[in-house]
Amino acid sequence: MEKPLILVDPLPRTLDSICDHETRSRLEQLGRLVISEDAAMPDDLVDRHLPEATLLLGQTAMPRDRIARASRLKAIFNVETNFLPNVDYAECHARGIWVLSPTSSFAEAVAESALGMAIDLARGITVADRAFRNGEEKFGLAGNERSFMFTRAPVGIIGFGDLGRKLRALIAPFRNPVSVYDPWLPDDLIRSHDCSPIGLDDLLRSSRVVFMFASVTTENQGFIGKREFELMRPGTAFLLMSRAAVVDFPEFLRQVESGRLIAATDVFPKEPVDAGDPVRHVEGLLLSAHRTGGMVEALHQIGRMVVADAELILRGLPPQLCRRADPSVASRLRSMPAGTR
Amino acid sequence: MEKPLILVDPLPRTLDSICDHETRSRLEQLGRLVISEDAAMPDDLVDRHLPEATLLLGQTAMPRDRIARASRLKAIFNVETNFLPNVDYAECHARGIWVLSPTSSFAEAVAESALGMAIDLARGITVADRAFRNGEEKFGLAGNERSFMFTRAPVGIIGFGDLGRKLRALIAPFRNPVSVYDPWLPDDLIRSHDCSPIGLDDLLRSSRVVFMFASVTTENQGFIGKREFELMRPGTAFLLMSRAAVVDFPEFLRQVESGRLIAATDVFPKEPVDAGDPVRHVEGLLLSAHRTGGMVEALHQIGRMVVADAELILRGLPPQLCRRADPSVASRLRSMPAGTR
Amino acid sequence: MEKPLILVDPLPRTLDSICDHETRSRLEQLGRLVISEDAAMPDDLVDRHLPEATLLLGQTAMPRDRIARASRLKAIFNVETNFLPNVDYAECHARGIWVLSPTSSFAEAVAESALGMAIDLARGITVADRAFRNGEEKFGLAGNERSFMFTRAPVGIIGFGDLGRKLRALIAPFRNPVSVYDPWLPDDLIRSHDCSPIGLDDLLRSSRVVFMFASVTTENQGFIGKREFELMRPGTAFLLMSRAAVVDFPEFLRQVESGRLIAATDVFPKEPVDAGDPVRHVEGLLLSAHRTGGMVEALHQIGRMVVADAELILRGLPPQLCRRADPSVASRLRSMPAGTR
Amino acid sequence: MEKPLILVDPLPRTLDSICDHETRSRLEQLGRLVISEDAAMPDDLVDRHLPEATLLLGQTAMPRDRIARASRLKAIFNVETNFLPNVDYAECHARGIWVLSPTSSFAEAVAESALGMAIDLARGITVADRAFRNGEEKFGLAGNERSFMFTRAPVGIIGFGDLGRKLRALIAPFRNPVSVYDPWLPDDLIRSHDCSPIGLDDLLRSSRVVFMFASVTTENQGFIGKREFELMRPGTAFLLMSRAAVVDFPEFLRQVESGRLIAATDVFPKEPVDAGDPVRHVEGLLLSAHRTGGMVEALHQIGRMVVADAELILRGLPPQLCRRADPSVASRLRSMPAGTR
Repeated sequence: MEKPLILVDPLPRTLDSICDHETRSRLEQLGRLVISEDAAMPDDLVDRHLPEATLLLGQTAMPRDRIARASRLKAIFNVETNFLPNVDYAECHARGIWVLSPTSSFAEAVAESALGMAIDLARGITVADRAFRNGEEKFGLAGNERSFMFTRAPVGIIGFGDLGRKLRALIAPFRNPVSVYDPWLPDDLIRSHDCSPIGLDDLLRSSRVVFMFASVTTENQGFIGKREFELMRPGTAFLLMSRAAVVDFPEFLRQVESGRLIAATDVFPKEPVDAGDPVRHVEGLLLSAHRTGGMVEALHQIGRMVVADAELILRGLPPQLCRRADPSVASRLRSMPAGTR
Repeated sequence: MEKPLILVDPLPRTLDSICDHETRSRLEQLGRLVISEDAAMPDDLVDRHLPEATLLLGQTAMPRDRIARASRLKAIFNVETNFLPNVDYAECHARGIWVLSPTSSFAEAVAESALGMAIDLARGITVADRAFRNGEEKFGLAGNERSFMFTRAPVGIIGFGDLGRKLRALIAPFRNPVSVYDPWLPDDLIRSHDCSPIGLDDLLRSSRVVFMFASVTTENQGFIGKREFELMRPGTAFLLMSRAAVVDFPEFLRQVESGRLIAATDVFPKEPVDAGDPVRHVEGLLLSAHRTGGMVEALHQIGRMVVADAELILRGLPPQLCRRADPSVASRLRSMPAGTR
Repeated sequence: MEKPLILVDPLPRTLDSICDHETRSRLEQLGRLVISEDAAMPDDLVDRHLPEATLLLGQTAMPRDRIARASRLKAIFNVETNFLPNVDYAECHARGIWVLSPTSSFAEAVAESALGMAIDLARGITVADRAFRNGEEKFGLAGNERSFMFTRAPVGIIGFGDLGRKLRALIAPFRNPVSVYDPWLPDDLIRSHDCSPIGLDDLLRSSRVVFMFASVTTENQGFIGKREFELMRPGTAFLLMSRAAVVDFPEFLRQVESGRLIAATDVFPKEPVDAGDPVRHVEGLLLSAHRTGGMVEALHQIGRMVVADAELILRGLPPQLCRRADPSVASRLRSMPAGTR
Repeated sequence: MEKPLILVDPLPRTLDSICDHETRSRLEQLGRLVISEDAAMPDDLVDRHLPEATLLLGQTAMPRDRIARASRLKAIFNVETNFLPNVDYAECHARGIWVLSPTSSFAEAVAESALGMAIDLARGITVADRAFRNGEEKFGLAGNERSFMFTRAPVGIIGFGDLGRKLRALIAPFRNPVSVYDPWLPDDLIRSHDCSPIGLDDLLRSSRVVFMFASVTTENQGFIGKREFELMRPGTAFLLMSRAAVVDFPEFLRQVESGRLIAATDVFPKEPVDAGDPVRHVEGLLLSAHRTGGMVEALHQIGRMVVADAELILRGLPPQLCRRADPSVASRLRSMPAGTR
């Protein structure tokens, strides 16, 4: 029997970047690969191969008419970990084509970084290193005037998807009371992770450390603004790990510059950041250049998850590791969460 | 019945620094306090009160003859968390006087800081913040060329007392294989904490992250020298959390300056550090001014542990929270571990 | 705006059996209920209401033509926790109708019972109680000649869905090495639960305690037969928690009667069991009358999960707690797993 | 240098029963063994060897005059795991002789058994097996009328030593709220195990499952009597795992016979139990013939712990695994806890 045809169109990623050697071998075992490595697959190539294709790995545009011609297609894997609007999800759904993405690939990398940054803010690690280099260090107790223990500090998590849940698992030994705000999830699910479901305002008022993992949607842009920042108690640590657009960024900077809040951010309204951007000199802000997720290990996780699910699908079984596109949700998501580049 | 007499001689600490309000009240319930708050208790005061004293909180010299006169004494609590050579431990032992110290008071504070620093080294958090401030940041993958995942990285812990065990508990969700070198402990105890007992050389060769928590003893000064540093693989992260004297410090700096190792240190051969000390400018070194333990919460833990055990002892029960002085060990310890000031 | 119409046709369950008071209130908040409590909803009633119905809770037959008329239908919830062949899954899929079932409702109840039974077998609890009542007890060590420690014993789990994963979580503190055989799952998923993926034969050879949670499919009936039982080492404990049909039941009984294996079973080829069935007198067999799952708490969990997901769906969000029917799988499943009655 | 002399006088145990092959080899490496295997070591043999002995493993009487002649003795290891009144603890203390016992040897065996029995009581496992054998089983829900979920049920632990703490660790995944009554321990220690310190009456009133691990002392005989049993809510499960003497045993049986409580017991006022003792026929009582601790694995743990600590002591280091005798406590303890035979 002929091996199934697999289209690989991973731009802006490359197949090499998302597959370690072993994963690549497993993929090659699965079928004949048609790969467009350095550029998007040309339309004529897509159109020529689609009728034979069983799997599509990549972000190729898949409008209704293309789907109609892809009569053998069993699954589309988005390897950017982001459901884009260039796929007709309803049509795929109607034809029983899985639309999948390994959205949790970056969760370990982002979550460990987020915890490192949270302890950094609580204990003043980077600030104290900078002071030491400037000859302004203070030893012992005197050096901890603005520090607090992360252990047992009340934690609030905004957005409880893969990243938030992984972070929650990592902090378990610290015994923090953890509140979660995520209006897309039932309370029982939140409780099953030993967290308390809570309203946004109450979360902001009661937490000493706030992790922002919420994706940007059509509905929540800038939903943390002046009013919300002022609900937080002075000295609260705020970690912006998803997208700059979920906060009123200028107000965010004002809060940190004024010393009311301390903060870390992995994302910026414009990336890269201008050379002269004053964000570079905010004292209480821990700066990270959209790098919490971009680890080789996380990228290789994309390949592992995609290939494992592809193996199942070709055996007639449902996928187990990737997330399935939910049409209603896919259309609400605006952009990719932090760490997915 | 008259309340027991309690001598309080906590220098270099003060009773206020180690007791929150509630703990102070509990202590006052226990007995009549004779306190020397700002200076060591004068000898004549000690000598006058000792025959009546039931408890001694502090670092008062207690040679054999004083112990002989302290006929009601039930316990001596060192509140510096350090067994000093000015107590005749054997004589206390012979007379059934508990000699105790709340040595684990600082474990939570030091361990969470150590974990924060370890993630910082693995993921380049402080280095990346500094680059960002200097206009040299790199976004995404490019910014992680020298980063590695702390998750699942092989960890080695040297010295497995309160600090090492607390750190081990905190990193459990990261699923690191953890090796421990501690020649004072039986293998089964190390295994019971889900760690592998291992020789020092093997630990250094196999770990990606090495935590140094060993106290200085008469036997182990400078036991990590050139030979040992060279056993570590390039890129290993070394965290010096106990005392500078356990390493050959100049060699340590050379290893980090050369880029072979990355490191964090909370301790220095001379504290405070001279203004012109070149240690301030070592690029791969995360600097902490002996401040990982010195948190108000940790100091208050001293009072809580001492008062809780004092309550038990006055009821005729054995103490449960403080460590008991082991004569043979007390004489080997040279100086206090990090975080105890 | 008029409240949505919700058809409730839960036979063989009743709405009261699956909803506690609070859940029932939440359901009534969601819409107008049309309930058929003691009998299956009559066809004419179904047909009359379907065009208005937004949700269907129950096991009502839903062939293609009915689905076509249910133009407002957003979701079908199977509350028997079992995907039946009387629904046209492909058509639901094509029309974007969720087909859902709270399959994990019984996981807590079954898993805690399975652990209790496993410790019972390892330590001889029920057997020893019976001996005591018969005047044949042996004290201390002599009473443990055939006992073994469940702690650290090699465990094998066959079938790693909700039940297997919950059991795995419950036994974590016992530090068992855990192997899993589940041909429907990728190895990485199994590893992410701290288990080793393994072939069936190796699992049987290497485990001291084997938990059978596999559902019956068209392919696996009687897949544990004489050959497989003989792979197990003498004294292995085998717990049959899913369906009698996955084993060769007469051979199973022979193995236990002969003393080669010890076992527990919650399921039988014919239920109820005949009065004279010799299964009642097998000495090494712990007998449970299909009761590990049938707890009021588990039934109420059905209602909680269904109502929580219904709330999300009516807000335009994807469900989070129920399992979604996978057409390919639904057609393979033959019958309901243990504990779902 | 001559190897140290080690006296081995383990009656009522034997050296073989407490040492596996590897442990025995390690012990023989440590020194020259003088062993009295089948009977207590004769006085003349003890007296002849004591002046040379460095270690004593066993329950040999050690009054003051013998200790005085044992000038090289460094440690006495009680291998019955029980501090007996035939040792002059104060004199040992005064001479710096460790008096030790591996009291936690039985903790794993007893705790897993206790958990198995607790689930058994909650879910009616043994009772249902007996009914099935008698042809009186009920299937499904009907068979669970008197069952309750152990998961999340309020648990009370009386006596929080090695056994209680091990049990607490084992039940962590069940998410029970856990209350502890132990008047010998500070509240902070109890809290550090994620338990709530509580008074005895409140524990009895609020718990659904009560574990009794308290040792018998001169002060607590029969401290659970009619008044205390009546504080418990109907249907409470009571597990007597330590000594029969801590309860009013006849009242205990009345409570279970009446159906008010369900219970398990590993201990009896008189062991072995008389053939005609009506305790054998109490329906709601799970019977265990003092066998929860008596596992070969637990006995071998004695040897492992003793030899590991002996190795340390001979190197001049303090012991780490055995418990040290506290003179004040040793004199209060009346008899050995369950599972130590």
